[in-house]
Amino acid sequence: MSDLPGIVVTGVSGRMGRMLTEVITASGKARLAGAVERSGHAWIGRDLGTCLGTAPMGVTVTDDPLTAFAGAKAVIDFTAPAATLAFSKIAAQARCVHVIGTTGFEKEQIEALAPAARHCTQIRAGNMSLGVNLLTVLTRKVAEALDAEWDVEIVEAHHNRKVDAPSGTALMLGEAAAAGRGISLEENRESGRDGITGARKPGAIGFSSIRGGDIVGEHDVIFATAGERIVLRHIATDRAIFARGALKAALWGLDRKPGQYDMMDVLGL
Amino acid sequence: MSDLPGIVVTGVSGRMGRMLTEVITASGKARLAGAVERSGHAWIGRDLGTCLGTAPMGVTVTDDPLTAFAGAKAVIDFTAPAATLAFSKIAAQARCVHVIGTTGFEKEQIEALAPAARHCTQIRAGNMSLGVNLLTVLTRKVAEALDAEWDVEIVEAHHNRKVDAPSGTALMLGEAAAAGRGISLEENRESGRDGITGARKPGAIGFSSIRGGDIVGEHDVIFATAGERIVLRHIATDRAIFARGALKAALWGLDRKPGQYDMMDVLGL
Amino acid sequence: MSDLPGIVVTGVSGRMGRMLTEVITASGKARLAGAVERSGHAWIGRDLGTCLGTAPMGVTVTDDPLTAFAGAKAVIDFTAPAATLAFSKIAAQARCVHVIGTTGFEKEQIEALAPAARHCTQIRAGNMSLGVNLLTVLTRKVAEALDAEWDVEIVEAHHNRKVDAPSGTALMLGEAAAAGRGISLEENRESGRDGITGARKPGAIGFSSIRGGDIVGEHDVIFATAGERIVLRHIATDRAIFARGALKAALWGLDRKPGQYDMMDVLGL
Amino acid sequence: MSDLPGIVVTGVSGRMGRMLTEVITASGKARLAGAVERSGHAWIGRDLGTCLGTAPMGVTVTDDPLTAFAGAKAVIDFTAPAATLAFSKIAAQARCVHVIGTTGFEKEQIEALAPAARHCTQIRAGNMSLGVNLLTVLTRKVAEALDAEWDVEIVEAHHNRKVDAPSGTALMLGEAAAAGRGISLEENRESGRDGITGARKPGAIGFSSIRGGDIVGEHDVIFATAGERIVLRHIATDRAIFARGALKAALWGLDRKPGQYDMMDVLGL
Repeated sequence: MSDLPGIVVTGVSGRMGRMLTEVITASGKARLAGAVERSGHAWIGRDLGTCLGTAPMGVTVTDDPLTAFAGAKAVIDFTAPAATLAFSKIAAQARCVHVIGTTGFEKEQIEALAPAARHCTQIRAGNMSLGVNLLTVLTRKVAEALDAEWDVEIVEAHHNRKVDAPSGTALMLGEAAAAGRGISLEENRESGRDGITGARKPGAIGFSSIRGGDIVGEHDVIFATAGERIVLRHIATDRAIFARGALKAALWGLDRKPGQYDMMDVLGL
Repeated sequence: MSDLPGIVVTGVSGRMGRMLTEVITASGKARLAGAVERSGHAWIGRDLGTCLGTAPMGVTVTDDPLTAFAGAKAVIDFTAPAATLAFSKIAAQARCVHVIGTTGFEKEQIEALAPAARHCTQIRAGNMSLGVNLLTVLTRKVAEALDAEWDVEIVEAHHNRKVDAPSGTALMLGEAAAAGRGISLEENRESGRDGITGARKPGAIGFSSIRGGDIVGEHDVIFATAGERIVLRHIATDRAIFARGALKAALWGLDRKPGQYDMMDVLGL
Repeated sequence: MSDLPGIVVTGVSGRMGRMLTEVITASGKARLAGAVERSGHAWIGRDLGTCLGTAPMGVTVTDDPLTAFAGAKAVIDFTAPAATLAFSKIAAQARCVHVIGTTGFEKEQIEALAPAARHCTQIRAGNMSLGVNLLTVLTRKVAEALDAEWDVEIVEAHHNRKVDAPSGTALMLGEAAAAGRGISLEENRESGRDGITGARKPGAIGFSSIRGGDIVGEHDVIFATAGERIVLRHIATDRAIFARGALKAALWGLDRKPGQYDMMDVLGL
Repeated sequence: MSDLPGIVVTGVSGRMGRMLTEVITASGKARLAGAVERSGHAWIGRDLGTCLGTAPMGVTVTDDPLTAFAGAKAVIDFTAPAATLAFSKIAAQARCVHVIGTTGFEKEQIEALAPAARHCTQIRAGNMSLGVNLLTVLTRKVAEALDAEWDVEIVEAHHNRKVDAPSGTALMLGEAAAAGRGISLEENRESGRDGITGARKPGAIGFSSIRGGDIVGEHDVIFATAGERIVLRHIATDRAIFARGALKAALWGLDRKPGQYDMMDVLGL
């Protein structure tokens, strides 16, 4: 039908699956080539458009990933660790780019992903937004360039239903700052300031967590010294950016040799 | 020498005393009429300019506050509670406006200031900056206008030597928000978020404290709800604003009837 | 069916009409009592849910506003000036609250709205968001409280398709600042700085317009003087806030006497 | 007296000269080895401390730069183009690091600086603040990493006496963004938005200039696309940072081979 590269979405009925469907079909850079759900799901065998309450899309939801992957160039996968492990082997068989946005892996599960990457391009990241990944690289570079007289503070803001603090992304930024300085985050982390804290410890990396309304996600990395400050800020206002990041990764992966990659590779930094 | 109203500075050798001297002489709206230090201080009997390392100013530092106050319209006083109590009685005798920037009073000391205010205008505030006082008024008004679906978060940033968190001003802003909502700050305060905090409690007033470099003082009051936010922000970049606020209070007090006032009165809000 | 107050939406097939439908049905505070479109529209006579591609809603789209308004307590109307004028008369007949989010009226059209308000409650605002209206009130109050040594700057950011600068809301905020100072905005407006501008004119009200991405709308009112700044900021991240503001106005209007009101009345400021 | 490297300050009576004196003596990393003023200046032959109204410093102000430079490791020079050209030759003779913060050079004057750099280390930058130089590098890198769907906007804020817009630093950041994209700033610059501007041009680099109070200098480089933004921000709150940057450059230069360097070299980026 189209010369655009075909992409399969796994877990297509979920929140990210729907968003991926929308982003791919609206992109003009790829076409939706397949939609996978688990066996027994009510959508199996039906047209995806009908399931989503839109016009028919000509894509039938299937529980046979191998056939789906075989007819596509890439698969985007935001499911769960066990499912993603299984998909990694099928992507290897089908020689498909495998973009993994799934989180929550155990260490051994991450190791178990490696063999498949001998046969296909595998791109995995905890946060698929271009902006956050770029911010992480910048944070490391700035921390390397500035000495310890620049205090590092990481401030994040999220919606009022978030249950943990600081955010995972804030901690990732803190790790990047610590790596840039050649220090350990764990030994220098200062979070939850409250009461008589004493003066700030030299070299500390501070964290503050703001919670309110429906804020999608905002992160500031502040480097403050006498008389000046540098702030690296990322503002997310739409969860679709995670789907767009995954699509970008899939397109980038089309011309790569098999292997394991992350969003830093995709961004070329 | 000049028709400008004369102002006396107490504790003239201290950090705030020096800044007050500078602000008053540069203002063009008042003149320095006297400079008071405690008995035994090395500066007593010397010209203030000579002590400060500038040109002579024609003002001799004295340890006799009554004579100094009697020759002036107002006194600005950032000293210590016991000294301020003594000065309040002398200001009453001299019918001088008494501007009090001193902090750290006990409850009984505050009560002991009242009698003097029957005879002279007494203006006292924990923070003399116009901006912070205005922000406090605004915070209360906005908290009154918005219902509890707007989450309140207070974020402050200060230099890396500050030993307590949240700042006194942040707590004052929190009290203003709580008063606007008719709730207790103590019961709704959420500070020091760290780890698995659970979702934000409805009605909570959150606090975050950033520490770095030589930040003079920055306060954000955030009201966040679904789809929109209001932020009330104050940025202080120069401690001279506290001296300027005190001077404004002194000039405002010249035409007032005796009584106790605060910066809200000076601002007319 | 429900004891919740019934609300009619006019122009129900449009962008704001759909959003109002969604916000009302999700609110738990009102029910959708009617859906009006112009005669000849394809949706007339069909169930609104079917038209929107959702489950049936039990509300049939109609081109008979009088019958629709008669069965409801309020009507929310984001259409066009001529249609709104006609609806105002019908709302008066039906004794319905008439919330008007329509913009672009000529002066005479605004005058022509007045007679209807003798018989029903009419609430009209150029921007229905609670936050922006509150910001406008705050801007006026702060401009009143601070003297001309505080420079006023208004900074707004919008998406990259916006064709005019500064935004209408920024100009509304500028008018509020000018009114607070008792000056004319037209004579003191400073926008489009570029090149050798000379020093800032005392008393000027400056405007800056940022354009990028899909920013919904952000407005900063900055009051800057030596050593300190106050910033009043509004951030909109979802256009649904305009629908929510309209719903709030409709509910507020239920107990009012006939007359003309705006969002300031709704907010009680 | 001390093993710390000795540094000479030229134009020592000027605003930057005084600030350099203060920063060097307070640094603990260098000592003030000489103070140069033009022949005929009232300070010549006097102790610098006495001239500044502080305690004697053991450094006599001189109009003989060669002798001064010969007794030092480095000279820091914020004077004027003609003086700096002369000093460059003397620094070459004395084999001194020559840090040049002077601005306003003509093209030919810049070329005339080159010969001296065959004999000594010469470090020159239009803005000596570490933060701004780092921001410039980051801006270029981010512009390289992101495609043209990210709109670039540069927003700067300065005090109300500044006569030009956008600031020189904002233009330098714009050049860095243009270089990163491989486009011409001149052809893509969009500044002074006012009135009916039409939609933002794809690829444009926008500028906004805020003026108010005594803001030392703030620069934001915003990259905005659908659903997310990256902001690179620099905030200067004290002009001493320019002196500190110069001192850092001088110390960095001690171990370099002769040649021309800029602050990017000093930062190692």
